Amino acid sequence: MMDEIKGLNILRITEEGRHEVEEVVVREFPLTIILNNQELVTLLCSPKDLNYLAIGFLSSEGLIQHKGEIGKISLTDDESVVQVETEGAKGAATELLFRRLITSGGGRGVTSYPAYDVASKGRVESEMRISAGVVFALVEEFQQRSQIYKVTHGVHSAALCDAKDILLFAEDIGRHNAIDKLFGRCILEDIPIGDRLVISSGRISSEIVLKIARRDIPIVISKAAPTDRAVDLAAHLGITLIGFVRGRSMNVYTGGWRVIGD
Amino acid sequence: MMDEIKGLNILRITEEGRHEVEEVVVREFPLTIILNNQELVTLLCSPKDLNYLAIGFLSSEGLIQHKGEIGKISLTDDESVVQVETEGAKGAATELLFRRLITSGGGRGVTSYPAYDVASKGRVESEMRISAGVVFALVEEFQQRSQIYKVTHGVHSAALCDAKDILLFAEDIGRHNAIDKLFGRCILEDIPIGDRLVISSGRISSEIVLKIARRDIPIVISKAAPTDRAVDLAAHLGITLIGFVRGRSMNVYTGGWRVIGD
Repeated sequence: MMDEIKGLNILRITEEGRHEVEEVVVREFPLTIILNNQELVTLLCSPKDLNYLAIGFLSSEGLIQHKGEIGKISLTDDESVVQVETEGAKGAATELLFRRLITSGGGRGVTSYPAYDVASKGRVESEMRISAGVVFALVEEFQQRSQIYKVTHGVHSAALCDAKDILLFAEDIGRHNAIDKLFGRCILEDIPIGDRLVISSGRISSEIVLKIARRDIPIVISKAAPTDRAVDLAAHLGITLIGFVRGRSMNVYTGGWRVIGD
Repeated sequence: MMDEIKGLNILRITEEGRHEVEEVVVREFPLTIILNNQELVTLLCSPKDLNYLAIGFLSSEGLIQHKGEIGKISLTDDESVVQVETEGAKGAATELLFRRLITSGGGRGVTSYPAYDVASKGRVESEMRISAGVVFALVEEFQQRSQIYKVTHGVHSAALCDAKDILLFAEDIGRHNAIDKLFGRCILEDIPIGDRLVISSGRISSEIVLKIARRDIPIVISKAAPTDRAVDLAAHLGITLIGFVRGRSMNVYTGGWRVIGD
């Protein structure tokens, strides 16, 4: 955790006056991803699990499907650049990248998922179910797990779970990055993702639903709110979308048949 | 506000059982910006003040400096596409765009501000000061103003203020978009931004500090946390960065000389 936070001397002003105090802030680190000698993107992220992040990002962008395609992955000594080499269809990857760069752009909340990506994605057919009691328990444990958040209030977290336990946990200043770290780790460590669910600390936007759908994950859970487009997409793709899990209450926006009584 | 939210019938599960209830979610709307007949970007945003958003985005990207450059701005009937035509240096804009597309990429937390943008930005020299009591009062009023947040918990907000009052207020599902809407409105309506401050509901990352610095705004305030890189940049650029304004307490990370006693 040390690399992900930083102590600072700051000025705190209260009704009692002005005091210099030590405060901890979350680190923001630029990671540049180079795919087959081509500079792809610079992500602002938390400096941990950077290989997972790089592979998860490439997978979310459709540039990597499975571990067998990865010929080499190497991080520079200062961890600011990750180089990934893939076997096979390099031309296709370049073409995909080019298309995405044209349709996306300046960063921040920009979509890189045009509408035709949605149309070509089939429904998630999993028969996975989960009990309401387990949803409450998982979210409670999830919130306990975020050490960096407790100290800095500056990160998002994400977890991969089965219908009983949290299996993997990741944190990052970006809610997309936290989820990409989960999936990158699954690829690099051959962890199966069938009949798994994802918990996110962040709002559920359409991009998050597409990221989940791309892995055929049938259930996504958040204590925060979804957008209308996320709900529409989840319905269209057969995904169970659960939001506002707070205490012993939850909103099931789509796919309620997967949530069963205790 | 009607267009920015949407009512849905959802399933609420509590210890008392399962009930169908009506719930309101925030809308997520794709806005495509076309600059001089060239498709630039699609932003996922809240469908309000879309002209402000388009101009603010272009200004944040350095593609527009002032109103005089804007030859024409038009929104399609369904509001999904905004076309902007500028006078003058079209070649320069295209070149800038191309460079940014190469260095940025897949969206979500991706930076479009390479390091050399920072080096070329001079310090913000404003002598503006604000009293601690006004900071507390502005943030309290700011939180009261966000109607959509109260209903959906799904949006960010931003405000432009002088050392006494909130002058402009904007909301959007993206924290960057909310700030861009403020500055876009200032350009289109010739509203001066000298000796003004910005309040944001979101975390203060380096990109937010750069967005503020680009307008020579000397003070940025949030009730949320900053990142280490945002603090470093604010110090380097002479900006007062105030975070964690909660009740009658605030953290002043940089530029404390601008915050005076009551």
